[in-house]
Amino acid sequence: MGSIEHENDNHVIDPIDPEEFRTQAHKVVDFIADYYKNIEQYPVLSQVYPGYLRKNIPEESAPNVPESLEQILQDVTRFVVPGITHWQHPNFYAYFSASKSTAAFLGEMLSSGFNVNGFNWLSSPAVTELEMLVVDWLGEMLKLPKSFLFSGSGGGVLQGTTCEAILCTLVGARDQKLREIGRDKFSKLVVYASDQTHMCLKKAAHVAGFGDENLRVIETTKSELYALSPNSLRIAIQSDIENGFIPFYLCATIGTTSTNAVDPLGPLTAVAQPHKIWVHVDAAYAGSACICPELRHFLNGVENVNSISLNTHKQFFSAPDCCCLWLKDPSALKNSLSTNPPYLRNAATDSGEVVDFKDWQITLSRRFHAIKLWVVMKSYGQENLRSFIRHHVEMAKLFEEMVKRDQRFELVAPRNFGMVCFRLSFWDVDMSNVMNARLLEEINKSGKAFMIHTVVKGVFVIRITIGGMMTKERHVVSTWKLVQELAEKVMVMEGI
Amino acid sequence: MGSIEHENDNHVIDPIDPEEFRTQAHKVVDFIADYYKNIEQYPVLSQVYPGYLRKNIPEESAPNVPESLEQILQDVTRFVVPGITHWQHPNFYAYFSASKSTAAFLGEMLSSGFNVNGFNWLSSPAVTELEMLVVDWLGEMLKLPKSFLFSGSGGGVLQGTTCEAILCTLVGARDQKLREIGRDKFSKLVVYASDQTHMCLKKAAHVAGFGDENLRVIETTKSELYALSPNSLRIAIQSDIENGFIPFYLCATIGTTSTNAVDPLGPLTAVAQPHKIWVHVDAAYAGSACICPELRHFLNGVENVNSISLNTHKQFFSAPDCCCLWLKDPSALKNSLSTNPPYLRNAATDSGEVVDFKDWQITLSRRFHAIKLWVVMKSYGQENLRSFIRHHVEMAKLFEEMVKRDQRFELVAPRNFGMVCFRLSFWDVDMSNVMNARLLEEINKSGKAFMIHTVVKGVFVIRITIGGMMTKERHVVSTWKLVQELAEKVMVMEGI
Repeated sequence: MGSIEHENDNHVIDPIDPEEFRTQAHKVVDFIADYYKNIEQYPVLSQVYPGYLRKNIPEESAPNVPESLEQILQDVTRFVVPGITHWQHPNFYAYFSASKSTAAFLGEMLSSGFNVNGFNWLSSPAVTELEMLVVDWLGEMLKLPKSFLFSGSGGGVLQGTTCEAILCTLVGARDQKLREIGRDKFSKLVVYASDQTHMCLKKAAHVAGFGDENLRVIETTKSELYALSPNSLRIAIQSDIENGFIPFYLCATIGTTSTNAVDPLGPLTAVAQPHKIWVHVDAAYAGSACICPELRHFLNGVENVNSISLNTHKQFFSAPDCCCLWLKDPSALKNSLSTNPPYLRNAATDSGEVVDFKDWQITLSRRFHAIKLWVVMKSYGQENLRSFIRHHVEMAKLFEEMVKRDQRFELVAPRNFGMVCFRLSFWDVDMSNVMNARLLEEINKSGKAFMIHTVVKGVFVIRITIGGMMTKERHVVSTWKLVQELAEKVMVMEGI
Repeated sequence: MGSIEHENDNHVIDPIDPEEFRTQAHKVVDFIADYYKNIEQYPVLSQVYPGYLRKNIPEESAPNVPESLEQILQDVTRFVVPGITHWQHPNFYAYFSASKSTAAFLGEMLSSGFNVNGFNWLSSPAVTELEMLVVDWLGEMLKLPKSFLFSGSGGGVLQGTTCEAILCTLVGARDQKLREIGRDKFSKLVVYASDQTHMCLKKAAHVAGFGDENLRVIETTKSELYALSPNSLRIAIQSDIENGFIPFYLCATIGTTSTNAVDPLGPLTAVAQPHKIWVHVDAAYAGSACICPELRHFLNGVENVNSISLNTHKQFFSAPDCCCLWLKDPSALKNSLSTNPPYLRNAATDSGEVVDFKDWQITLSRRFHAIKLWVVMKSYGQENLRSFIRHHVEMAKLFEEMVKRDQRFELVAPRNFGMVCFRLSFWDVDMSNVMNARLLEEINKSGKAFMIHTVVKGVFVIRITIGGMMTKERHVVSTWKLVQELAEKVMVMEGI
């Protein structure tokens, strides 16, 4: 065998040489630090045209030979940066922030460095056990009942996004109900949501095999602040039962995407529980804010739901993607999502003593999300995390105050968290819609700030979400001045 | 308004201060570089016991006040590292490798640094346009027909994992068929796969609303090298049609998880096409190897399928999670997965000139995967990427040769790529299964290497996948010596 033993690797480049890794990674750290330092020089919303990249990089093939890191970073600057909408820019106020922090970056580096795939306990026990720790820690910060924690009778899991959390709970609830009533009743099952529920519920229902006839979208009203009305829910359920349908799943939202409306968990679960409806709470954005005692009341009633999820990458400084899902009865998920092929069998799993998170999610592969959350919680501590959120809420209050003082504008929905919904106010709705669309276009075209709109009951609304990691009061104040100036400009242009 | 304008941010820590970011990120780079440098000192398979972490970190809450980075990294070393199964260790031969490279790490840093959420074109045009570029480049390396590329009539998308790619195509194919035949035929649809198909197909089918009665698992045989037989498929389809079922989806595999079997795409599509069955190719592991001309023949027939996916994190140096899915007709996905709520409406989308990848996947949020693949391709160039793969295949050949030379062992399936299936050979199958299980236990307990087993037709098989980024010939040779020594030990202990 001696002849085989010669070293034959010399001609091959090392994909990971520790010292080359060190040198190059240091360069990229500096590149990113410089990007953050200079971020205010870029237009917040990318101003490129569709197809810009192909025009700049027409090559139809990857290069044959290596390019240097310097060359690559130059290309990043020339071709990528102009096409970036800068989510870390202090004047990024669109969607919900991709909440980030230095600690989250460090956590992602560690996750990327270890580069493990923690689908079951054995494949890296630390991935599973640290995840069990951090979801309990976060649950404790939120004052979730013990019934949702591993230290109690439930448990949590880190998924990528709320879309996955909703799909998993929907499938778990679906199968639980079908085991009870028989698979032939599939087409009779009904999912409930409000007309303000995030689109991911409809998408998940569709993926899980439901048609529009299985989805009840309950209308909300301005007078009820766009929250799901328990009474409307009761009527819808009653009507469905009379028509031979079988209610099985309700998605309630804490902080809707359009206006941050809050569905009342206590009264809704009181309606749902007699019908054994699985109640899931989508607290994607606003859930994290409930770590502040003064905001915790928005979660009142959570003790009666089956599951709740929030995106730690929206307001918990943890960078996409990282969604935390807690369940009172994780076995519903495991019954639907477990698989145990021979190549994943192992003594630890067979012992029943360990959690295999692959059975709590759609995919098999899973990143080491937990270390990111752990580093975030340890780096800042609970007090600072609450301060960060309060700071965002305070800045949103400030913006709200400034809107209130300008008679030309109005607030469209109450501000509950870090988001404000406002518009130029006109007597005529159509005109108002046109003018606000024009105003938003001017704001975004300016490159100085980026916001998006929503439409609530036919009304075009400008949304400003204040949650950027670099956003300070001066940015919020100057952004409001920009809005005022551009409103003036738009009104002059339209001859008003 | 002057009174509001005062700066009121001083008391709040900056979640991203560029200079603090720089200092801390440099420290973590060194931590990871040192980890790689010393990686061989750790047992490959973590040796901790279930619950080890909670015993070491009994705190029920996150800390109230910040901990220093030094303290956190110390905790990573003390509590996390022992619970890591070191996927980057040169003697990690289990599952499929979590293929990593320095370039992938740099790409992930950039992705994490920009921290954008590229769900639609507007939210960061570079995310979408760079993705369109790299999937075309990779498709070109694989010599996929133009019908799968954006530069032709199809297109590709980067998802997290194969599980998602299969679920998306399954849902797209399902809905396409149901639009044709009516939703009331849902329960009559049939999915085809072999008994060697990855478990994610069954899970995806289940999520998408199918029961066991909708899934045909076709038996493979040793004589046909565990590949799906076109003839068996034909018989199954025929029988289903006679029984009133409607065939609609076939999952073929290039490089099965158990033995790296290759389903023959040409003959299978010939059987499937007359029935308008959507054929998806799961090339999760082995697909990347087909960038080498001498291995490309395994993809022959791909020109006739509907979709193909591979994990660039398995053999394309790109770190989990990153799955590339190409489709001839992306509209099937878009018809099933599109959503267009008011808060995502924008002029670019309305113009129809841009791709919004949110409509090509299950989730809304999406990371900037493309920059990682781009940096990998530019850093190494096509020639080196092929060399890396050839080097792994060569080392697997070497291992295969060494197994062949030892009469006590046998190869269980032909080696097609970088994986070898072997076992201690005994006349009695039960005894062989027991002895090989004992041998594998000894290998993994030693901490010197980590492999897993599979079971094929009742036979316990040891799998060694050679694709580690730090694996060199000397590791493969010494691992074989270890296997021989432990086989000796096990046989002595069992009195053989």
